[in-house]
Amino acid sequence: MSDLKNKILEMGRHARAASRELVKLTSPQKNDILNGMATEVRHAEKTILSANEKDVDQAISKGLSKPMVDRLRITSQSLEEIASAIEDVAKLPDPVGEVLADWTQPNGLHMQKIRVPIGVIGIIYESRPNVTSDAAVLCFKTGNATILRGGSEAIHSNTALAAALQKGGENAGLPANSIQLIPFTDRESVDHMAQMDQYLDLIIPRGGKGLIERVVSVARMPVIKHYDGVCHAYIHHTADFEMAADIIINSKCQKPGVCNALETVLVDREIAAGFYPYLAERIKPRGVEIRGDTEVVEHWPGAKNATEEDWTTEYLDLILSVKTVSGLDEAISHINHYGSHHTDTVVTENAEIAQRFMHETDSAVVLWNASTRFNDGGEFGFGAEIGISTDKLHARGPMGLAELCSYKYLVTGSGQVRK
Amino acid sequence: MSDLKNKILEMGRHARAASRELVKLTSPQKNDILNGMATEVRHAEKTILSANEKDVDQAISKGLSKPMVDRLRITSQSLEEIASAIEDVAKLPDPVGEVLADWTQPNGLHMQKIRVPIGVIGIIYESRPNVTSDAAVLCFKTGNATILRGGSEAIHSNTALAAALQKGGENAGLPANSIQLIPFTDRESVDHMAQMDQYLDLIIPRGGKGLIERVVSVARMPVIKHYDGVCHAYIHHTADFEMAADIIINSKCQKPGVCNALETVLVDREIAAGFYPYLAERIKPRGVEIRGDTEVVEHWPGAKNATEEDWTTEYLDLILSVKTVSGLDEAISHINHYGSHHTDTVVTENAEIAQRFMHETDSAVVLWNASTRFNDGGEFGFGAEIGISTDKLHARGPMGLAELCSYKYLVTGSGQVRK
Repeated sequence: MSDLKNKILEMGRHARAASRELVKLTSPQKNDILNGMATEVRHAEKTILSANEKDVDQAISKGLSKPMVDRLRITSQSLEEIASAIEDVAKLPDPVGEVLADWTQPNGLHMQKIRVPIGVIGIIYESRPNVTSDAAVLCFKTGNATILRGGSEAIHSNTALAAALQKGGENAGLPANSIQLIPFTDRESVDHMAQMDQYLDLIIPRGGKGLIERVVSVARMPVIKHYDGVCHAYIHHTADFEMAADIIINSKCQKPGVCNALETVLVDREIAAGFYPYLAERIKPRGVEIRGDTEVVEHWPGAKNATEEDWTTEYLDLILSVKTVSGLDEAISHINHYGSHHTDTVVTENAEIAQRFMHETDSAVVLWNASTRFNDGGEFGFGAEIGISTDKLHARGPMGLAELCSYKYLVTGSGQVRK
Repeated sequence: MSDLKNKILEMGRHARAASRELVKLTSPQKNDILNGMATEVRHAEKTILSANEKDVDQAISKGLSKPMVDRLRITSQSLEEIASAIEDVAKLPDPVGEVLADWTQPNGLHMQKIRVPIGVIGIIYESRPNVTSDAAVLCFKTGNATILRGGSEAIHSNTALAAALQKGGENAGLPANSIQLIPFTDRESVDHMAQMDQYLDLIIPRGGKGLIERVVSVARMPVIKHYDGVCHAYIHHTADFEMAADIIINSKCQKPGVCNALETVLVDREIAAGFYPYLAERIKPRGVEIRGDTEVVEHWPGAKNATEEDWTTEYLDLILSVKTVSGLDEAISHINHYGSHHTDTVVTENAEIAQRFMHETDSAVVLWNASTRFNDGGEFGFGAEIGISTDKLHARGPMGLAELCSYKYLVTGSGQVRK
């Protein structure tokens, strides 16, 4: 066995031991620990900022793009935001211990289904160092031990942040090794991590498609994936044009670089000749490039021809693909075939059409007369989110504290045996 | 691409198409279809029994053991049981469409979290042909398409049963290809199945450790595992001896060959000298072989010495390992370390001890003063179960109809956009 593998297995063993202690903490104890972490993050400002400087210098000398360098940079202000975000998590209700079901069987057995921590969660992520804190803190709030494996660009920042969290937490009673950062940034360390299902109960890759693909193909434990959002708006012929344009513009332009931004609009043929010129006029000031089918090109000044590839592309940019459809059935078929089962909205005044769209479109979040941008833990009132899952099992859509928990059954008897 | 792979991919494509139709069925339509399946199973009795005869003849000529041949055999009576079990599933409430949460955000968005089918479920199983019907019917009741891949020993029986289910269902409106059986029984077909995550949303292997291991190491989609049950009873020093013996004997002997049967008893040192001779006397008529530590051997006439291996062994037989512990903490540590996180019970008169045991033992089902044999969908009142999951994500413990579902969010607005 390689030395690297041994070291990662040892971290796994330590994380499992920590998880056995974490399960014993009460909510007030956990919140004290979170506040201790925030205090230490503030206290270690100099250490963290100077570690971050090393990463930033390296990134610049490697010639990374300015946006990449900016994502990497921690300032006094952004560190304060990290610290106060930890305090905000302390204030959230604790989902652990929540009774999900409670009943008594005819034989007198009292059954309770309660929320419990998952155990040990692995987080694999790229570049942004604030993920170190966000992920570790949400996992801890829900009683889980965490093994973090960040990208090489942020290794110094991540190490300093993780150390501050563990140290500040320990001052307030955090069990040893509750938050561990893997000090290796080669790809092999990801493989070893994804293979040790005896210690890791769940792995969450946060990053690009390549990273997720790699984890999926290697992992032995469950993986919760946050894949692309190829999100759609279907404009039914009964739609209010003004509302439809508002929703399309907001979904596309309010923050184009995120997974719940709109990529494709489907429009009923019945209204195409009227709606396209209207929308073209409304969206013009936003500088959005339009790629459409022949009917779109015909009615939309400046629209280009879409290719087959456009229907599956997450642009994350001010580009919008537009397709003319014969009605609801074609719209749903298109979305289920080309979409990514993330977020899709219908604009219609017809309740029956809306109900069919929402039930037959196979996506995590389906909306009626609202912007796709609302698929978000904060907008759902979840308080915090670790991401938006494109999976169908365990967590689908915004993944908040409850989705970082498992459950178990407590059965209380008075000597019952089975007949 | 191999021909075999192509054929399995085509079945996947067909299953996905079927799942798009299944989502449109109402509960009464699904129940009519289930009754149609039961009718056809009865109607096709001759075909099914003669197909089964081929399997049985082959098994005998291959020299399979009598219990194996018995597991394989379908009689008129067991076929009637299969048919009436389908009718029983029709009578169960439909979990699809159930509203799991319903709230309105301050901006007026109405949010609903509702239960929906998962989509396409793959079931890989060994020998027993009734699994063909049990699995397909539960998956269908919850609106899922199924791809079944049974063992080679039962291929003729499985083919005949699956054909009857699909045909009987179609007579009552079942979409084509809702239930498909892979006609190949080589191992390569399992690999191809476990790799096509574009068509298969979940895979459930039902069989031995070797089969589950193989699926876990190859699968790209979520796998729900039904691993071993190394189940424990911890006898606290406050336990009522008679109740403790009743629970141990029932947990071990009522059906020793199943996953929720007891394998290891842990006893407080404080009562060892008194409890061992009492239990020895009580359990004697059952012919159970006892393997224990030195204190057990000292106080228990006929007990053998346990080895390290005994603590992790699922005997599935009339063998019981017994260990003396210093108290609750050692008992929990032992169970969390050597157990399989399946089912564990504590016998005690002390409520605080019981609460700590139930919360700190990391198992799907934890009991207080009751037999381990109660970890069962039927005993939980679930109506039907597809197995007992040893996983922590999505489904843990008895896996009923609700656990064969996913969920989605329906968001209803009136033109809301994000600020």
